[in-house]
Amino acid sequence: MNKEVLSLLVDNHSGVLTRVASLFGRRGFNIDSLTVSATDNPAISRITIVVQGDEQIIEQIVKQTDKLEETREIFALDPNRSLFRELLLVKVAADETNRSAIREVATIYKAKIIDLCMESMVMELTGEPDKIDSFLDMMKGYQILEMCRTGITALERGEAHHSFN
Amino acid sequence: MNKEVLSLLVDNHSGVLTRVASLFGRRGFNIDSLTVSATDNPAISRITIVVQGDEQIIEQIVKQTDKLEETREIFALDPNRSLFRELLLVKVAADETNRSAIREVATIYKAKIIDLCMESMVMELTGEPDKIDSFLDMMKGYQILEMCRTGITALERGEAHHSFN
Repeated sequence: MNKEVLSLLVDNHSGVLTRVASLFGRRGFNIDSLTVSATDNPAISRITIVVQGDEQIIEQIVKQTDKLEETREIFALDPNRSLFRELLLVKVAADETNRSAIREVATIYKAKIIDLCMESMVMELTGEPDKIDSFLDMMKGYQILEMCRTGITALERGEAHHSFN
Repeated sequence: MNKEVLSLLVDNHSGVLTRVASLFGRRGFNIDSLTVSATDNPAISRITIVVQGDEQIIEQIVKQTDKLEETREIFALDPNRSLFRELLLVKVAADETNRSAIREVATIYKAKIIDLCMESMVMELTGEPDKIDSFLDMMKGYQILEMCRTGITALERGEAHHSFN
């Protein structure tokens, strides 16, 4: 199984996400994460998709996605030349007995405590996906009440860039 | 126009994103941002959607989404009781003449410089969407080469939580 991070620049039309999601969903392989949001050009949205699957099938879907009217550009990000980041919000059960211990883990990972009440706290952590995973492994030693990850967002290192201005 | 942040807990099946996106896309109103990723339960994915539109239409779509077989829960996040965060990666043209000035802005916003070359730098910033917007406004004074936002991810403050463990 191959894991690919794909970046799409598409026209910011209603319905474009449906068409992209259906191309990927149809093949029955799942999307690990997907983010879509604005770019510096209001007419263009950026979709970042992480997929796992057979290399050839991914290649086919990339070609099909490239043919969509709304697709301006689609490219795979080379892990060796890219910056991958993800944001996590996690709510953990915490009271007087274990608050310090949890806070110590947060400090080591440079996670920020952004909400605190008598029985729980919410932490925010930004980093490479592996770092997020390993922080979550530590938090599993406590009780995770709820969590929310953004999915991966990515840019290439260096001066190379893709944009439509 | 009303802006709503909706949180969905759905079965982690191939195709669920297509169905959700098509419910929202069909009405012709656009999705401002969407993130989908794993939760602490591998069988469940979490989708966070930011939509703008008529309050009644949003309410209708929420009801329709709730009826989907894969939907475990859908709820709107109250802005007064929620934590909204977003992650930005932005590549800006920067050389010896303006590197210090850009770095100073980054320091004020607590943005991290995560890549640097002779002609550009990449910064990472996590915060409330308004903070991201205002940082980008500052960066427009320089030359934005490329950017990538994750879209909003959100949790409620306090102990209340939604999860399926």
